Amino acid sequence: MKSQTALLYFCSAMNIILIEKDERFFPRYDERCVHIRKILKKKAGDLFSAGEVNGPEGRALIERLDETGLSFSFTAERPSAPLHPLVLLVGFPRPIQLKRLLRDVSSLGVSSVLLSGTDLGEKSYRESNLVDRGSASASLREGAVQAASTAIPSFSLCDSIDDALRTLPDAAQRVVLDVEGAVCPLAEMSGDRPTAERPLVLAVGSERGWSARERDLFRLSGFTVCSLGSRILRTETACTAAVSVALAKFRLW
Amino acid sequence: MKSQTALLYFCSAMNIILIEKDERFFPRYDERCVHIRKILKKKAGDLFSAGEVNGPEGRALIERLDETGLSFSFTAERPSAPLHPLVLLVGFPRPIQLKRLLRDVSSLGVSSVLLSGTDLGEKSYRESNLVDRGSASASLREGAVQAASTAIPSFSLCDSIDDALRTLPDAAQRVVLDVEGAVCPLAEMSGDRPTAERPLVLAVGSERGWSARERDLFRLSGFTVCSLGSRILRTETACTAAVSVALAKFRLW
Repeated sequence: MKSQTALLYFCSAMNIILIEKDERFFPRYDERCVHIRKILKKKAGDLFSAGEVNGPEGRALIERLDETGLSFSFTAERPSAPLHPLVLLVGFPRPIQLKRLLRDVSSLGVSSVLLSGTDLGEKSYRESNLVDRGSASASLREGAVQAASTAIPSFSLCDSIDDALRTLPDAAQRVVLDVEGAVCPLAEMSGDRPTAERPLVLAVGSERGWSARERDLFRLSGFTVCSLGSRILRTETACTAAVSVALAKFRLW
Repeated sequence: MKSQTALLYFCSAMNIILIEKDERFFPRYDERCVHIRKILKKKAGDLFSAGEVNGPEGRALIERLDETGLSFSFTAERPSAPLHPLVLLVGFPRPIQLKRLLRDVSSLGVSSVLLSGTDLGEKSYRESNLVDRGSASASLREGAVQAASTAIPSFSLCDSIDDALRTLPDAAQRVVLDVEGAVCPLAEMSGDRPTAERPLVLAVGSERGWSARERDLFRLSGFTVCSLGSRILRTETACTAAVSVALAKFRLW
């Protein structure tokens, strides 16, 4: 970002320009065109770093830049760096926090986010119009762009933890973060280095935490209860903290 | 938070009511009074969890609640839980990110935040009126309240990394997060468990990173260069991630 103006356009940095497969033109007011013109100050003949959504990364060459928009060619140079084998199962945060949470965990490179209703969660959060696949996908994409990655985490909405648990792969390793009943700190959990075949599921509650019923469900589904210290963290702070500790513990960082 | 109304009042949860030493009355529209009335739904004779800023935690008894405000008595029950011996040295983020960054690292319990100008940082960020001790203190306090802690991290503004480095205690262990020249991932840094006498300084750059000059300064000041993976993280995501990994590595969590 080279000017305050940039703040009006973007909430986070555009470290790669994401394109759809075969997309070779941005209309003038497409935010990517605005970014390339106003922030990167590129002209016809210049190159910019680009990549296909969930596809290869490479370089794009600006062929034409005029009042209609920007035409470019794209040369794939390398495959997308794979996402980390971490699945985040998270209770609905407040709407104002949701976009940031999705963007931040996407920038950290989790492979999947399950956003779920919880027994103690505020029902109205779920009804917020911020919670639709469109805006969720946009936030996840923004996080990938921040991280200069073409890989976008998968996303699912679940009505309840019961539903969310049904969607987990059988082979997944499972940890639920909880202030009550933790058997150890997250950093000391026993488990193997997560893989695509055997990912690690990290479950983080919403602001009022888990109900006794949900705690039973997690136990019956083979979750280990771990802690992140005794201080009460916001849902999105806990998500970033839990993902970071897991990435560090299993040397994925 | 028990209602959507709460969203209008607070950006994060009030898990403890912070009071000044000898403060025993909240005017009716003080946010703490509003929270106790509207969210906690307390009445005269009820108790609420409270603590003195940088002082003991305990319980407060509502003695009177009327149109003028709320009068209470306070009983100290335990000393404040100490903050973690971590010092965060961070380059100015965008103004819209600064409040959140301060609140989040305060909720994680760092003992000190040094907010510094950097060679590549956007100068206008520093001039923002968000950057004054008043609003910084308010954000740090909000993070402590979220974490149900009475201890507020100390805060300093520095014009440059040169100035910031001069303020560090000689005995401090020093790590700078950098995408270039890292000798190891943060989780594999060598070092002793931080203590109040020998804290760990974590330096996190602003969005354009460190200049060659600043990298030299860090090296000459005995900083080890560590990484948090290869993905480009926002300044505040990197701060939460770095603090979390350090707390986990040194079993402070």
